Amino acid sequence: KRARDYGIKIGVMAPGKFNSITDVSGVTVGHTTLIKGDSVRTGATAIIPHSGNVFQQKVPAAVFVANGFGKLAGSTQIMELGNLETPIVLTNTMNVATAMDALITYSLAQSGNENIRSVNAVVGETNDSFLNDIKGRHVSTADVLQALANAKNGIVEEGNVGAGTGTICFSYKGGIGTSSRKLPKSLGGYTIGVLVQTNFGGVLQINGVNIGKELGKFDFSNQLLNNVDGSCMIIVATDAPLDSRNLERLAKRAFLGLGKTGGIASNGSGDYVIAFSTAENLRVAHSPKEKVNQNNTLHNDYTSPIFMAAIEATEEAIINSLFAGKNMQGYKGNVVEGLPIEKVLSILKKHNNIN
Amino acid sequence: KRARDYGIKIGVMAPGKFNSITDVSGVTVGHTTLIKGDSVRTGATAIIPHSGNVFQQKVPAAVFVANGFGKLAGSTQIMELGNLETPIVLTNTMNVATAMDALITYSLAQSGNENIRSVNAVVGETNDSFLNDIKGRHVSTADVLQALANAKNGIVEEGNVGAGTGTICFSYKGGIGTSSRKLPKSLGGYTIGVLVQTNFGGVLQINGVNIGKELGKFDFSNQLLNNVDGSCMIIVATDAPLDSRNLERLAKRAFLGLGKTGGIASNGSGDYVIAFSTAENLRVAHSPKEKVNQNNTLHNDYTSPIFMAAIEATEEAIINSLFAGKNMQGYKGNVVEGLPIEKVLSILKKHNNIN
Amino acid sequence: KRARDYGIKIGVMAPGKFNSITDVSGVTVGHTTLIKGDSVRTGATAIIPHSGNVFQQKVPAAVFVANGFGKLAGSTQIMELGNLETPIVLTNTMNVATAMDALITYSLAQSGNENIRSVNAVVGETNDSFLNDIKGRHVSTADVLQALANAKNGIVEEGNVGAGTGTICFSYKGGIGTSSRKLPKSLGGYTIGVLVQTNFGGVLQINGVNIGKELGKFDFSNQLLNNVDGSCMIIVATDAPLDSRNLERLAKRAFLGLGKTGGIASNGSGDYVIAFSTAENLRVAHSPKEKVNQNNTLHNDYTSPIFMAAIEATEEAIINSLFAGKNMQGYKGNVVEGLPIEKVLSILKKHNNIN
Amino acid sequence: KRARDYGIKIGVMAPGKFNSITDVSGVTVGHTTLIKGDSVRTGATAIIPHSGNVFQQKVPAAVFVANGFGKLAGSTQIMELGNLETPIVLTNTMNVATAMDALITYSLAQSGNENIRSVNAVVGETNDSFLNDIKGRHVSTADVLQALANAKNGIVEEGNVGAGTGTICFSYKGGIGTSSRKLPKSLGGYTIGVLVQTNFGGVLQINGVNIGKELGKFDFSNQLLNNVDGSCMIIVATDAPLDSRNLERLAKRAFLGLGKTGGIASNGSGDYVIAFSTAENLRVAHSPKEKVNQNNTLHNDYTSPIFMAAIEATEEAIINSLFAGKNMQGYKGNVVEGLPIEKVLSILKKHNNIN
Repeated sequence: KRARDYGIKIGVMAPGKFNSITDVSGVTVGHTTLIKGDSVRTGATAIIPHSGNVFQQKVPAAVFVANGFGKLAGSTQIMELGNLETPIVLTNTMNVATAMDALITYSLAQSGNENIRSVNAVVGETNDSFLNDIKGRHVSTADVLQALANAKNGIVEEGNVGAGTGTICFSYKGGIGTSSRKLPKSLGGYTIGVLVQTNFGGVLQINGVNIGKELGKFDFSNQLLNNVDGSCMIIVATDAPLDSRNLERLAKRAFLGLGKTGGIASNGSGDYVIAFSTAENLRVAHSPKEKVNQNNTLHNDYTSPIFMAAIEATEEAIINSLFAGKNMQGYKGNVVEGLPIEKVLSILKKHNNIN
Repeated sequence: KRARDYGIKIGVMAPGKFNSITDVSGVTVGHTTLIKGDSVRTGATAIIPHSGNVFQQKVPAAVFVANGFGKLAGSTQIMELGNLETPIVLTNTMNVATAMDALITYSLAQSGNENIRSVNAVVGETNDSFLNDIKGRHVSTADVLQALANAKNGIVEEGNVGAGTGTICFSYKGGIGTSSRKLPKSLGGYTIGVLVQTNFGGVLQINGVNIGKELGKFDFSNQLLNNVDGSCMIIVATDAPLDSRNLERLAKRAFLGLGKTGGIASNGSGDYVIAFSTAENLRVAHSPKEKVNQNNTLHNDYTSPIFMAAIEATEEAIINSLFAGKNMQGYKGNVVEGLPIEKVLSILKKHNNIN
Repeated sequence: KRARDYGIKIGVMAPGKFNSITDVSGVTVGHTTLIKGDSVRTGATAIIPHSGNVFQQKVPAAVFVANGFGKLAGSTQIMELGNLETPIVLTNTMNVATAMDALITYSLAQSGNENIRSVNAVVGETNDSFLNDIKGRHVSTADVLQALANAKNGIVEEGNVGAGTGTICFSYKGGIGTSSRKLPKSLGGYTIGVLVQTNFGGVLQINGVNIGKELGKFDFSNQLLNNVDGSCMIIVATDAPLDSRNLERLAKRAFLGLGKTGGIASNGSGDYVIAFSTAENLRVAHSPKEKVNQNNTLHNDYTSPIFMAAIEATEEAIINSLFAGKNMQGYKGNVVEGLPIEKVLSILKKHNNIN
Repeated sequence: KRARDYGIKIGVMAPGKFNSITDVSGVTVGHTTLIKGDSVRTGATAIIPHSGNVFQQKVPAAVFVANGFGKLAGSTQIMELGNLETPIVLTNTMNVATAMDALITYSLAQSGNENIRSVNAVVGETNDSFLNDIKGRHVSTADVLQALANAKNGIVEEGNVGAGTGTICFSYKGGIGTSSRKLPKSLGGYTIGVLVQTNFGGVLQINGVNIGKELGKFDFSNQLLNNVDGSCMIIVATDAPLDSRNLERLAKRAFLGLGKTGGIASNGSGDYVIAFSTAENLRVAHSPKEKVNQNNTLHNDYTSPIFMAAIEATEEAIINSLFAGKNMQGYKGNVVEGLPIEKVLSILKKHNNIN
């Protein structure tokens, strides 16, 4: 059961059909989950912007570097050219290179890409070294290609899957989470979907209720520095016709959603947001027929509801990752517990936050 | 009474003595409040980093542009040189030039500055045109000089004062707010203080409780675009020895505090954070005796508690601005009500957020 | 006579009709030159993007901060919203506030702008304090309004005029300069125009010939630090349909043109480039009729010739400012000589650079 | 013979002993050159900041993204934390992932790094696909480790070596080039060294003389778009005590050196500058003994000569890459000629640029 199934209603806007990034038409998500022996607890998650050839039909995109203490690959080209030419792959910190290589292989193998000689592979990561033997670099090229091949629309598996297999959030088991918002017609009717890989800390708040404080489990609660080399990767997709400049603004807002869960973007937490638009009219052809593109872009004045939707969906996606995260034992016998859902629900009830 | 006096305890860290930006030793704040006739509802607020000659002894500083739809003056030089050489003045959107001119006059007049020929005046603003006849540009050079002259330590007046005289926040009367946090010795013992000029919207949350939702008063609640050309100016001061790079990181975290109050950084809300350090060892001499400065700077690894403190203090400063804001009638008879404190308290009680 | 009239042909592309920023259709330039008594040597220069109401029909624009040690007003809003809503005014460092105020007055006074309550005035500056009594802040609001009123197309006066009245470049008299390039049809047929306000140092090169070295007049030639608080403002206009992202890229290239003249962007030289497009299809309505704009934008792949044109035009505009700069005596009797044209021509001949 | 050996004296400052990046004490450079069969023309070049453990003793560093159309790995962490924790490796576009993986292996293998679980591998690239079978991804992890193992001080091999084996510059054979400047005592006595991997176009100028124009070989000379997916990687090292902020400013100036050779930073040219300081006092310990570092940093006012040196050394390093580049045949029988040195010298003589 997801947070919303327990009656936790984050924000004031309505989610899309699956309450998932896949509510943005055309977006698909695939996981490869690696749980092997005592110490492999990692994986890869792929987010594919549309079902065509993404290299030939690039999508407008932007990156917001909330805290650059991470290894995100591909950021400068997205920022410079304003578009994304591969799927986005998430994995662990030490396997970014593997995933890049796999994305190149994937792109070269697509029909129509036979002659390309440059690929901007986009790979995000968080550090799962508490539960996973990260130095083993256990994610293989084949694993990443499998995540890409697994990508599908509809329901997205959350929690201890894919790139979230071994991650930790607010000292509980984090992982993959997703959520979406659908704007009313009057505000454009656009869908905004978010997928997160959660691996960070702070003082957990669920729908505003100070869970971390009540459970006495939060950063610096022992006045000791928390040295987790965490991170949160946030992917925002929308069908709103936003150009790269407004996508960057959108990406910035998603960071506020992280803040609302109690995240503090600690020194060691490499937090990044990648936002892209699936609006067909804004696709950037690799080999354009015309020098001048005919684009339809949303006027600045109409972006605010989309910003608000991204904040809500990011907050809920993070909470969803916690509700889906289950107890996990891994590297060196380390154990991370899942969010104690009953306790959390009783705190939420105490605060009249749910019925 | 401030939020904390009602039992509202935001965050997990302790405030400083005055729960104010002036808890950072040496920082002073002064207001000029202009309430004249039917339509002048504006003013200026000055934040002075230390009691010496700021031009001669500049302080390390940084700016984070959360939403650049504003008229902040002086940002590029702060970013380039990493320091601040004047006090910061806040005022209304149309009087930025006046305040710049006043800061130049102020700087030229200080003893020791007789020969300077360039001053980087730093002026922030929000748009108070609903309550104030902003086109009248009623703030004068003298008014700004008065705010500078009024600057003092200790308790800072909040609400409808200075640059906050005519501002609106979450559809209620906003204004000036301030708060601080003092880290325990084990985390460095540093003080972090925040002052805000609030003039923005979203869905108000107080200490996590969805006040806006319960009161049915929030952005897009009528599915109508909210065209307020708002803004939030956030000033963060600390005595921690942070260089401009880590001050920029600190500034970014303050933005999360805005998010926690329900702010969405809407298209029209020019939100900026300016952060500076008062650490004496990091002062930048205008006429250095040596080519090489001897600096003590905090290692990256020890910044996280300071980040967390800035988030908490920003959230509380914004809430304080709302608790201090009172009903105001102004330009064209427009009226903005203060936060309905009794109702708010009863909602907070209902949610077991206060006793 | 301008550089090209002496046979100095910078670059490989052809200039437009007037070899001026006004070759970009619709762009007009106006000066107010203040030469009064012994010590007033300053002024204002206005660049107006099109003949309509710029606030109501904003133009796509971008800023590149080459060296942020300057007082450019309006940069963050240009960057955030991707457009320019006022003419650009250049003046001296201490009169930026005056020019901002004048631009607000100008904007409020335009028909159709009666109800606007926020104006992002864009003002650049360089420091003319060697020849001008800069602390006197002698540029008035009326002077700036006059520069705006003076704006016209066709030939642009260069040298000791407007905002260039008191500026110094490579130790010679600098000032205002302009140049343009017109691409051949096959490369799009676009026009790129540049206007500069030159006030910086380095080792002067004219069309590649090391003039500074031969004349023994360059920075650090006496192994002494050059403390001039200079700056170079560079304005790039084009009719190519570039969005703000590609305009930012274009702005970056103009900086290379400064480098080719021997400029070094010294610590004290606040160098900025503002680029805008006059393409009618890309105008941004203040009150849009539709939420979604229909834009035609140039594909990234076709930008390179425009980049090259901006480099050439910037280099030539700077050289033009030097050829037009004449001896000037000013503040405290200080004297700056114009470029010794005969000597320069003989060096260029010696190097077979001109006939 | 290098450019200077032919009497070509770029700039006004004196080079260091080897006129190489290795003149900055402690910096070493190593190459692996891969020339195999008909179609492998590639390699790797490693630049190591100091002879200790770079991960444990990080160096202050910065990145300037001149044109982000490239695949530089590691940029966001350098910008965020202000330091570099691995050597820099340069290679071809499709082998960035390989080089990252090798840098992780290298770092994990160093004594003292047994417990690290995160490494920010910094890898730059240019596209050598005209001469090299880039899709074959022929650079192996072992090749990169070999380049690291080969690193030495003193003379640096230039031209068709390492990451420059298959690159093209101004339509001639480019490759690796290096140069340095040593400031006089009065200006601080610092050394600034530059290494470049050249693979870009424009209109070649050597010491200001328009070689490209005279040889009729330059971009758009046939009014055809030049689609080379080029790039220039520029590495700047200095022993001056610059913090990351001033290193970023230094990096920006190196871009001007590229401009002076006639480079235009075309759309497809991913141009990046990485700058670092070897000043021992500024090393950043991975496990600091104290929370507060005692740093000596150069005051902003004294940076200008260092900026100028970087411009000169970058220009000369690029020219050196061309003088060292030799004819090369490779992939699909493609041939690129080396700079026609005799012709070039005769043009330089004609222009009285050398004796």
